[in-house]
Amino acid sequence: MSAHFAIGIDVGGTSIAIGLVDSSGNLLVKKSLETKPQRSFEAIIRDIADTVLLLLEQTGKKIEDINGTGFGVPSTIDPNTKKLIFANNLSWLNMDLAGEYAKYIPGPIYIENDAACAVLGEVKTDPQAGKNVLMITFGTGVGGGLIIDGKLFRGCDGFGIEPGHIVLVYGGRKCNCGNSGCVEAYCSVTALVEQTKEKMSEYPGSLMWDSCIDSGGSYNINLADSRTVFSAAKKGDSAALELLDNFTAMAGQAIANLITVFRPEKVIIGGGLCNEGDYFITALYEAAKKSYFGSGLMPMPPFNKARLGNDAGIVGAAMLAMQATAL
Amino acid sequence: MSAHFAIGIDVGGTSIAIGLVDSSGNLLVKKSLETKPQRSFEAIIRDIADTVLLLLEQTGKKIEDINGTGFGVPSTIDPNTKKLIFANNLSWLNMDLAGEYAKYIPGPIYIENDAACAVLGEVKTDPQAGKNVLMITFGTGVGGGLIIDGKLFRGCDGFGIEPGHIVLVYGGRKCNCGNSGCVEAYCSVTALVEQTKEKMSEYPGSLMWDSCIDSGGSYNINLADSRTVFSAAKKGDSAALELLDNFTAMAGQAIANLITVFRPEKVIIGGGLCNEGDYFITALYEAAKKSYFGSGLMPMPPFNKARLGNDAGIVGAAMLAMQATAL
Repeated sequence: MSAHFAIGIDVGGTSIAIGLVDSSGNLLVKKSLETKPQRSFEAIIRDIADTVLLLLEQTGKKIEDINGTGFGVPSTIDPNTKKLIFANNLSWLNMDLAGEYAKYIPGPIYIENDAACAVLGEVKTDPQAGKNVLMITFGTGVGGGLIIDGKLFRGCDGFGIEPGHIVLVYGGRKCNCGNSGCVEAYCSVTALVEQTKEKMSEYPGSLMWDSCIDSGGSYNINLADSRTVFSAAKKGDSAALELLDNFTAMAGQAIANLITVFRPEKVIIGGGLCNEGDYFITALYEAAKKSYFGSGLMPMPPFNKARLGNDAGIVGAAMLAMQATAL
Repeated sequence: MSAHFAIGIDVGGTSIAIGLVDSSGNLLVKKSLETKPQRSFEAIIRDIADTVLLLLEQTGKKIEDINGTGFGVPSTIDPNTKKLIFANNLSWLNMDLAGEYAKYIPGPIYIENDAACAVLGEVKTDPQAGKNVLMITFGTGVGGGLIIDGKLFRGCDGFGIEPGHIVLVYGGRKCNCGNSGCVEAYCSVTALVEQTKEKMSEYPGSLMWDSCIDSGGSYNINLADSRTVFSAAKKGDSAALELLDNFTAMAGQAIANLITVFRPEKVIIGGGLCNEGDYFITALYEAAKKSYFGSGLMPMPPFNKARLGNDAGIVGAAMLAMQATAL
């Protein structure tokens, strides 16, 4: 095949981003859908396929121009069957994504964990990326992609690395994976929004409420999202600052645990929260720096925001489909 | 060199075991010393060297018969300089073990993390060991050795994997590494003995006191060691059983975290506590089985007691010195 384009699809717990990517990793066009995970699996895949067809039409491309489709999914993926074994944020068990998608769109289909796609997208579009890179994505869940010695590492049997489900608070909050105390139950966007609402209830005078005014001019706590706390913190709101201090200290310790284990040369922060930029990433770095094993004795890797931002997953997924996976 | 023997030295926080090992990994003779880590580093190394010379004399071997000396040390080791960067249970920082030992014993010196030596000892003496093996050692500290795809993995830069210093209880007990809530602060022999003493103080009628009678016939809590709780639990003592339930649940979760990340095909339990055998290892297995990510959906690796027991570290260290490190 001589095609130079691929479809990259980043399936998230909240939204699904679909893009057309060229062989250099440029995202040419992108469209997002709400995931609405309460829908049937079949309905979601049909919605994705419809959007792919729409994107092709809008860009004047035909299916024959496309090398294939790559999916990044917040799931463990059976390395042999490519079935989605367990996507805890989507309540999917053992789903045949490739089979369902092929009902609508022909061509090769590649499926990887979403954070694995994100780290591939980052390192394959950056000659300076290094050969030992850890990426952590803070989105609906907390994901991780890891490059060791230039190769993607997903655990010895392909079912790892799942850093969102390392237990950080033994006996702590219930996680929707079924266990308790997981990183994801404290450090995801979902957890941040929960913590924001708890803090707002506790502090009726907090500036966090300013982000939560509905069209009728009334305060509505359900309008709180992941930006609510950052926006108030930037204005100096003490409740918001306290919440973020705790949040970044925990997320920093979660990354420090991975530094202790993997010792990457670089850490990339991705997912929706990376859009909060330096404020968030510097706080994570400072927290992790205090709490990895041998702090000050062994080198601390630098933390960078994902160069591709939250598009890293789309690009990495598309690059899988470009069969450019050999790093 | 055509020698077929090497010295293996397993440096622990409590005792140091020194052995003469042949090229098949057979431990021919062994002698143990108390570490007494409050002594100077120089005094400890001199004591080790004296014992090596004694062992050689007793076995009728000359220095020329020996291929070299391998050390397993509970420390991060600089992969370039081989200095001991940080041995938190020995309070050693940046120690030149090779330089000090070479003052007494000539020949090549190899230095590795103690749990890395242990896993090497296990897999290199067992053709059935598999290519993806995680070993966890429960001793004065909690260590870990990992074989990925047939090769020792110590983190990307050689300063990992240090599973004793993954934080399991965020904001929890102080660990002697300087951080709080580390696995080692809850799941080491040191922690178990602390927990035993706490439980004994709480339960004056517990059978744990039976192990703590001094030569004058009086109860002395300071005689409690790691066997105290196991011995009472086997007699059905409820306080001991409760303590062990908590201990193995936490240690099981600590291993489950590593299964979630690394997905090994087999887990080997080593260190002093592995001598408690099935009782301990079955409890760890059952606890881990409930608490790894995707329990029941992804395979759970079997847990085995170290075949070489607590000698795995000596054998692995000696095999390093046999230059048989290429797995």
